[in-house]
Amino acid sequence: MSQDRVPLTPEQALLHGLLGPAETKIVLVVMDGLGGLPVESGGPTELEAALTPNLDRLAAEGTVGLSIPVAPGITPGSGVGHLALFGYDPVANPVGRGILEALGIGMEVGPGEVAVRGNFCTLAADGTVADRRAGRISTDECRRLVEKLRAMVRVEGVELAFEPVRDYRMVVRMRGEGLGDRVNDTDPLENGLRPLHPQGEDEPSRRTARLTAELLLQVRAALAGEHPANYLLLRGFSALPHFPPLAEVYGVRAAALALYPTYRGLARLVGMTVLDAGRTLDEEMAALARHWGEHDFFFVHHKPTDSAGEDGDFARKAAAIEALDAALPSILALNPDVLVVTGDHSTPARMKAHSFHPVPLLLWAPATVRPDEVSTFGERPCMRGGLGQLLAKDLMPVVLAHAHRLKKYGA
Amino acid sequence: MSQDRVPLTPEQALLHGLLGPAETKIVLVVMDGLGGLPVESGGPTELEAALTPNLDRLAAEGTVGLSIPVAPGITPGSGVGHLALFGYDPVANPVGRGILEALGIGMEVGPGEVAVRGNFCTLAADGTVADRRAGRISTDECRRLVEKLRAMVRVEGVELAFEPVRDYRMVVRMRGEGLGDRVNDTDPLENGLRPLHPQGEDEPSRRTARLTAELLLQVRAALAGEHPANYLLLRGFSALPHFPPLAEVYGVRAAALALYPTYRGLARLVGMTVLDAGRTLDEEMAALARHWGEHDFFFVHHKPTDSAGEDGDFARKAAAIEALDAALPSILALNPDVLVVTGDHSTPARMKAHSFHPVPLLLWAPATVRPDEVSTFGERPCMRGGLGQLLAKDLMPVVLAHAHRLKKYGA
Repeated sequence: MSQDRVPLTPEQALLHGLLGPAETKIVLVVMDGLGGLPVESGGPTELEAALTPNLDRLAAEGTVGLSIPVAPGITPGSGVGHLALFGYDPVANPVGRGILEALGIGMEVGPGEVAVRGNFCTLAADGTVADRRAGRISTDECRRLVEKLRAMVRVEGVELAFEPVRDYRMVVRMRGEGLGDRVNDTDPLENGLRPLHPQGEDEPSRRTARLTAELLLQVRAALAGEHPANYLLLRGFSALPHFPPLAEVYGVRAAALALYPTYRGLARLVGMTVLDAGRTLDEEMAALARHWGEHDFFFVHHKPTDSAGEDGDFARKAAAIEALDAALPSILALNPDVLVVTGDHSTPARMKAHSFHPVPLLLWAPATVRPDEVSTFGERPCMRGGLGQLLAKDLMPVVLAHAHRLKKYGA
Repeated sequence: MSQDRVPLTPEQALLHGLLGPAETKIVLVVMDGLGGLPVESGGPTELEAALTPNLDRLAAEGTVGLSIPVAPGITPGSGVGHLALFGYDPVANPVGRGILEALGIGMEVGPGEVAVRGNFCTLAADGTVADRRAGRISTDECRRLVEKLRAMVRVEGVELAFEPVRDYRMVVRMRGEGLGDRVNDTDPLENGLRPLHPQGEDEPSRRTARLTAELLLQVRAALAGEHPANYLLLRGFSALPHFPPLAEVYGVRAAALALYPTYRGLARLVGMTVLDAGRTLDEEMAALARHWGEHDFFFVHHKPTDSAGEDGDFARKAAAIEALDAALPSILALNPDVLVVTGDHSTPARMKAHSFHPVPLLLWAPATVRPDEVSTFGERPCMRGGLGQLLAKDLMPVVLAHAHRLKKYGA
C-alpha cells in the first residue's frame, strides 16, 4: 500500500551520517518546462532567444550542465519531474493521478485517504459510454453537478468529498479506515463500451472497490435525470505516498513558494513548509525576502515557462524566462550561498508538450563553485558545462555539498 | 538454466506502459568496432581521417555523443556490444562462447539445445595435452576431421551436430531432452596438463556432462590414428538465452541486415526478422529499400571497420568508414524519422583489437533533435556533443523517444 513509508534511494541513504549543520542558504528555482528546442534549423531555443543578463552572469560565475529528469528518453509528468529534482525516486514511488489532481486544486489529502479523478460522462440507455467527456460540459455545469453529488451521495463507512476541477473533470476523495488504492480505472477508454467494474488487488483495495461500487450506484441515481452528464468514470485511485521529509533526508528546513496548487502540494509531499507566495512573481519574491530568516532551503516555482511551451508559444516562453531573469537580483540581494536554476523537464514550444530532452541546469555558489568555460545560459552552452549531464536525483547531494552540508565520507 | 526467460532490465521495465504506436521509421547503423585512436600524437583517429561528408552533415543537423558499451573500462566482445546497443543486459545474461561460435558460422541453435566450441588438440600417450591447438591444423584438415566425427560418433539420448569453423576450431551442438549448460570447460588452458572431466552444476547440466563424457570417449576412439589432431578440448557450453523480443520490449517490428552470420544470429536472439542482405554493402542498401515498408526498425550492420581495425590497418578502416558514408544517401532517400550511426565497441587499428574506449554516436531526427555545436563526426567532436556520454543500454529509450513512441511518464 502506498501509505507505507517510501524507502530512501541509494543516493539519499549515502548521505546518512554525512549531514552536518551549516548556516548556509540554498535557493532552488524551478522554471517549469524550461528546456526547449529551436523552431527553425540553426535557430535558438526559447532560453537561448531570451535576453537573460542575470542568468548569463550567473552562468559565467557559476557552472552549468544538463539535468536528465528520470532517465534518458523518458518524458516526465510534473509530479515525477519535481520529485526527481527533490532527490526522490518517482519511478518506484509514483504519485497517482488522483493525488496529483487533488493537489492541483489545493484539496488536502491525508495519510490513509484515497483520491481519484472523476470524469463526467454520458451513459447510453444500454449502459455503454456514449461520450467519455459528456460533451465537454462547462466548468459551471461541473460545479453544479458536484453540488448535487455532495447533497445526494452518502456511502456508509466512508466520508466522501467531491471537488470540481475544470470542464468535465472532478475529484473524489475517500476518507475512512483501511482503504487501499490498488483499484482499476473504471474508464473503458473508448466510447461504446461499458464502464469497468472497480476491483481491488489486495484486501484494503477490495474494500475501496466495494465502497466505490456503492458510490457509483448512487451517482447514477443522483444524475439519472441529467443530460449530457449522467455518470462518472474514475481514473487513478491513489493514496498519498509517504515520502521521508526533506528535513530528515537532507537536514534542511525547506520552504516552498509556488503560485500553483499542484506544486505546493508536491512540496508538502516531501515535507516542505508551504509559504504564501501571493499571486504574482513579484509577490513571490517579496514572500521569499519576508521569510528568508526562517528557512535554509527555498524551492521557488515559476510556471509560465511551461504554460507557454504547452501552448506552443515560443515568444511567450522566452518572455516568461526573461521575467524570471529580471527577478533574480532580488534573490541575489538576499545573499544565498547556493543558487540553482533549472527545470523539472523540457516543454519545447515546438512540441507543445513535455518532452524527454535534458534540462538546462545552472549552479551558482561563490564559495565553492568550479567555474567552467560557459558564460551564457542556454541548451547548447549547457552541453559543454562543468556539471555535465546529471540525473536529477543526483542534484540534491551536489547542492548540499556546495552549501557545506556534507562531511567527508570514509576515513 | 539459460533457457529461462531473461528478465527485463530496469530501463526496459520503465518503458512498459509508455509504448505507443507511431508511423515512424528508425534505422540503427552499426559500424562494427567504429571507435579508434590516433596512430601518431596529434593525429586523427580513423573516423576523423576518413572523408565523411554525409556523416558530417548529419552531425551538423543532428546531435552526437559517445556510447559506453557496457561500463567504463570494459572491452566488450561482439555479442555483448550488440546486445547492449539493443538495450539488453549482456552482463547478467551473457551469450556463451559456444552459442556465439555457432551463430558465427550460421549454425541454427534452438531453445533447449547446447552448443560448445571445440578445439582440435594433440593428446600425448600419457593423456596430457601436448598441443592445445594441434599445431594449428588447416581449415581443410579441420573439415576432414569433422566429417570423420560425423560418421563415427553416436551418443544415445542426444542428437549431435559437428561443424568446422576455422583452423583447429569447430562447434558441437547437442539436441535432446533436459540438457543444461552449466558445464565446465574441459580445456586445461596449458599444455602438459590433462583435459578436465566435464561436470555439471545442476541436474540438467550433469546430464549434459555425462553425455559429453561419452562423446569424448568416442572422439578419442575415432581420432586415435590421427596426428597431430587426435582429440577435442571443449569450451563454453552454452544454451540459447531467451531474450524477450524487441517487439514486446520496445514495440518495434525490427529487421536486421547483416552480411555476417554472427550478427544475423544476434539479431535473431532478440527477435528481429533477418532479411537477406546480399553479399555487398550496395546489396544491403538495396535490401533495405526493398523491405522498407515491412518493418519500422532496421538494424544495419557494417563489418569491414572492425576487420580492418583487428588487422591494424588504419587506412583500410578509414576507407571502410568512407564506404558506409557513401551509402548513407540511399538510407536518407527512404526518409527515416530517426537515424542512428554508432558502433558496438571500438577497434583501434593501433591496438589491433577491440578496446574499451567509448564509441562515437550520432543521432539524426529532424522533428525532435536538439542540435549541438558539433558539425563533424569524430571522436573529439563527439566529446562535446549534446548526447554526452551515454551507456549503450540507454540508447533505445532515447531513440524511441525521438520516434514519438513513448508516452509521458507519470501524471
